[in-house]
Amino acid sequence: MEEKTDALPPIADFSAWYNEILRRAEIMDVRYPVKGLYVWYPFGFAIRKNTYNRLRALLDVDHQETLFPLLIPDHEFMKEAEHIKGFEEEVYWVTRGGLSELDVKLALRPTSETSIYPMYALWVRSHADLPLKLYQIVNTFRYETKHTRPLIRLREITSFKEAHTVHCTWEEAAAQVEEAVRLYTEFYTGLAVPVLISRRPDWDKFPGADYTIAVDTIMPDGKTLQIGTAHHLGTHFSKTFGITYEDLNGEQQLAYQTCYGISERCIASVISVHGDDTGLVLPPSVAPVQVAIIPIIIGKRRDEVLSAAEGLLTELKSMGIRAELDTRDMRPGAKYYHWELHGVPLRLELGPRDIDAGTIVAVDRFKVKRQISSAAEVGPLLDEIQETIRNRAEGAREAKIRLCYSIDEIRSAVQGGVAVASWCGDRACADQIEAETDAALLGSDLRGPYNERLLDTGCIVCKKNGTAALIGRSY
Amino acid sequence: MEEKTDALPPIADFSAWYNEILRRAEIMDVRYPVKGLYVWYPFGFAIRKNTYNRLRALLDVDHQETLFPLLIPDHEFMKEAEHIKGFEEEVYWVTRGGLSELDVKLALRPTSETSIYPMYALWVRSHADLPLKLYQIVNTFRYETKHTRPLIRLREITSFKEAHTVHCTWEEAAAQVEEAVRLYTEFYTGLAVPVLISRRPDWDKFPGADYTIAVDTIMPDGKTLQIGTAHHLGTHFSKTFGITYEDLNGEQQLAYQTCYGISERCIASVISVHGDDTGLVLPPSVAPVQVAIIPIIIGKRRDEVLSAAEGLLTELKSMGIRAELDTRDMRPGAKYYHWELHGVPLRLELGPRDIDAGTIVAVDRFKVKRQISSAAEVGPLLDEIQETIRNRAEGAREAKIRLCYSIDEIRSAVQGGVAVASWCGDRACADQIEAETDAALLGSDLRGPYNERLLDTGCIVCKKNGTAALIGRSY
Repeated sequence: MEEKTDALPPIADFSAWYNEILRRAEIMDVRYPVKGLYVWYPFGFAIRKNTYNRLRALLDVDHQETLFPLLIPDHEFMKEAEHIKGFEEEVYWVTRGGLSELDVKLALRPTSETSIYPMYALWVRSHADLPLKLYQIVNTFRYETKHTRPLIRLREITSFKEAHTVHCTWEEAAAQVEEAVRLYTEFYTGLAVPVLISRRPDWDKFPGADYTIAVDTIMPDGKTLQIGTAHHLGTHFSKTFGITYEDLNGEQQLAYQTCYGISERCIASVISVHGDDTGLVLPPSVAPVQVAIIPIIIGKRRDEVLSAAEGLLTELKSMGIRAELDTRDMRPGAKYYHWELHGVPLRLELGPRDIDAGTIVAVDRFKVKRQISSAAEVGPLLDEIQETIRNRAEGAREAKIRLCYSIDEIRSAVQGGVAVASWCGDRACADQIEAETDAALLGSDLRGPYNERLLDTGCIVCKKNGTAALIGRSY
Repeated sequence: MEEKTDALPPIADFSAWYNEILRRAEIMDVRYPVKGLYVWYPFGFAIRKNTYNRLRALLDVDHQETLFPLLIPDHEFMKEAEHIKGFEEEVYWVTRGGLSELDVKLALRPTSETSIYPMYALWVRSHADLPLKLYQIVNTFRYETKHTRPLIRLREITSFKEAHTVHCTWEEAAAQVEEAVRLYTEFYTGLAVPVLISRRPDWDKFPGADYTIAVDTIMPDGKTLQIGTAHHLGTHFSKTFGITYEDLNGEQQLAYQTCYGISERCIASVISVHGDDTGLVLPPSVAPVQVAIIPIIIGKRRDEVLSAAEGLLTELKSMGIRAELDTRDMRPGAKYYHWELHGVPLRLELGPRDIDAGTIVAVDRFKVKRQISSAAEVGPLLDEIQETIRNRAEGAREAKIRLCYSIDEIRSAVQGGVAVASWCGDRACADQIEAETDAALLGSDLRGPYNERLLDTGCIVCKKNGTAALIGRSY
């Protein structure tokens, strides 16, 4: 866990920056001896823990956490035709146990519909059991043949939060999809990560869904990253798995379902959206260390400074602030570098002169220096930094979105960002847009003021009525 | 999730009781369509969450949490000869990805030494990096051919907490094994589960360890359940994986290692050790619901009672107590049955007469009734119940341990408990004890006052000097 001090690649060179920051800020180690599998360093894991605790808190309001098996027998996995087709090239299969061949092959879940729904068929009996809203946070697996990338494209997704709900009617399920979108928006607001919410085109929806709403963010290189999805499953799975309930009239009815998921891509987005040329920038909401205290030790007053710093540490901790006192035998400058690289939102410097003056020097991650006079000011300061990080990210997002009224404009916009243009919903028009811009039509009905801003110009290809569509290159 | 109200099997019929309680108290569903894989109900998961949060808090003092991949390439898995031999009949192998055969077969970790130590070889450089103390909580897999049982003998162990430490010397590693034993003792004290700590015989130690210290508890039927182990790994793995450090003289030295683990058997022990003929008995430390409030609603004063009960709920929650208000449209008796079955430590009954008298009726899980006058009394009462549960379990353990001075006594003792007898450490003597008693010699050097109590009678077979050995039948 040595620290290199040569310069980090600039974030403008995003791929290089991303690979380097993961190692230097001790988030993931990529040297595990299987492609697409990575190791969480303790510091990275602490970010994960804080982030997922926030997600849990949001869900626990009206969902219950649970845990289903990883291994799915082939006869269950193969039940839903569209679902199989969507995953057959990506599933890992366990075929041997000990020294013998298994009679029934076992799939490593790529997602858990076929693990959970046979149980839902047993659990759901009556309308009184509905809605049922469960979630789990688990590892899932995809045999990725494309280029893999830590936290983004993985063979083991270590941190898949998937919720699965069951409802009496199609409309209630649709309302739950909206509720999922609201939850995810709140979650990402807490991470200061701006999102774009749209409806995936039919050919890109979840295998076995009526429709899919996706949450994307824009990375520093202008490519989009899908960081959450919510699916209306209709009765596709309830038909296959026999999930029915007795209604008020005593009749058996097919249940309606939704599922929605977030993976460790949420961590990738926090790292990428906020980071800068100096290193990580972590929002206080998830930073493992929110405040680093650096004692400025000069000769004779060493003990006095250390004891004041320890007092400050205790005080901050008692306020629930995640603070650390850095007493390592290093120059202060090297410590500043270390904590900036690790994205710590606030550094407090405390030396003899500060003690004499009754002040503390507070330097935020953007190197803005303030003088504060007590620990009580730290909490509000962290809130302010959280807000600054959010505004900065909002601004960066806005700068990367371009309203487009011609194919040429789209072609140019997707070089370093995303295009928003009117699209009628027809596959042929989408194909033409994609072919001529070398970008993907990611979604329609883009949430936000985009429909209005586009001024009803009609589909960019055929001029029929359209909605704001998101067009870009994606990870 | 319907509730049956016919009688639970008595705990004296332990196997039947255990199977029924898992379903009725909504801990695990055994109907998943693969042998040895089970589903956590939300209520069971909440026990798991509280339990593992306690374990995390103990470890987080000086360990760091992390996460390594599930899949281990065969070339790494096959490196340590004893380790392979110990696991080869139990390992699940992934051989297919999508539609193609994999070039490198991937093992599902049965335990993570061979996943973690290739990384430790990269991470450990110098004595300054040591000690290194990491842990993870993960799913692990065993292809069990024996009879499987929820939480006890599983094909997917869903909740394996495994710690892996690295040290400069053999002695420091040995001290860490003792520290692990201390941590586990503290953990189980918090769960009110009494433990027996002994050194596993050499033929039963962890494959690739110098020695293994095991933590067992005694189940209601007198069989033992191993609920924790700590292994001194010596340099077995550091040699194989090349984990070396530079010492103070600049020389490369082999590192010494330990590992120690606890699985969801800790939940099995909480359920089994404390349960009774009425159902679960959960220590307040891990009970998802510590207090159930039952409003006694009589005619006209319905709203008044409900509002008083809601006030009580709010007050308890503000004290950090996990309370629930049961407003279901059911008879109070049915509610009592429900919460007793689910092991809730304390029930508060509140009706018009109680409101008039300014009191609350508090009934603990052992049906002891008290009158209290304010919410402030609930916390101390829960502490008292925790203590009662602990003492009860201690008493039950003592009643199941018998000091034995002859093979005949052992044969009789292991019918409904465990035997403690002197053993010299020789395999031949152990073989004779096991053959003549149909029980296993589980460990030597049993911690506690047993050596003294045995009065130095010498090995029960050969009369040579011995230590207190634990003999019993185990799960």
